[in-house]
Amino acid sequence: MSKAIIQTETTHPTIVKMQEVVASGEEEKIIGLLAEDVEFMPPTYWATWTGRAPVAAVLGHVGQVFQDFEYRRVMGEGNDWALEFQCKVEGLDCVGVDLITLGDDGLIKTFEVVMRPHKTIGALRDAMMARIGKDPRFLEFKKALG
Amino acid sequence: MSKAIIQTETTHPTIVKMQEVVASGEEEKIIGLLAEDVEFMPPTYWATWTGRAPVAAVLGHVGQVFQDFEYRRVMGEGNDWALEFQCKVEGLDCVGVDLITLGDDGLIKTFEVVMRPHKTIGALRDAMMARIGKDPRFLEFKKALG
Repeated sequence: MSKAIIQTETTHPTIVKMQEVVASGEEEKIIGLLAEDVEFMPPTYWATWTGRAPVAAVLGHVGQVFQDFEYRRVMGEGNDWALEFQCKVEGLDCVGVDLITLGDDGLIKTFEVVMRPHKTIGALRDAMMARIGKDPRFLEFKKALG
Repeated sequence: MSKAIIQTETTHPTIVKMQEVVASGEEEKIIGLLAEDVEFMPPTYWATWTGRAPVAAVLGHVGQVFQDFEYRRVMGEGNDWALEFQCKVEGLDCVGVDLITLGDDGLIKTFEVVMRPHKTIGALRDAMMARIGKDPRFLEFKKALG
């Protein structure tokens, strides 16, 4: 990743680090930003992944599926942040927002992703199901989805 | 609308007014917040509506389709804002963000909406097509979609 990092004096260090590691899909780097009981709400369906290991694994796959990923604007302050991005999924255009809540320890407590348009989210869902279906860790991780 | 307005000292007056009128679907109030050449990017498809009258009409319909609408967090500063919301569409749960760029005149220049999950955006698309199909103004307005 050689993309520009968006930050001002008030940007939380975790939000700066997020920009360095999340889009890369580097799971072992992402995991260090997550609270132990982090909750991840994906754009694809109405459910929540809970826990550092499964969420890092899901985010790792997402980072591999997103192509030409770039953050556009970073808005927020304190523990509340919205990171606007653009990317491609299977060649389809996409805009989205990472909605983040940090805990007082600076780790990510909730991570919710909203996107547009409808068609691209469908392509993401298909690509994620294919990847997760081949990742044997999800036999165990699927218990973290509720 | 009797919902609480989210604001601090630095919240732009247009962003305060947006919270009062956008969710209500009151087109005649929404239109006063929009720049003449406003661009609206919907969550449903990859296209852009351009111009105050068609965008106000689209937003009016969206406001009617969204039920139990509530803003959750308002993030941003200056001309760049992200308004996080939750609502229901045809009984389905939904979280979304209004991504706003204001012009230096304080009017909304770009208005992009991202949402989750996939299924709810599909329901929104169907509901919007049904409503717009019955609104004769869209015979003219459809020229504003590119």
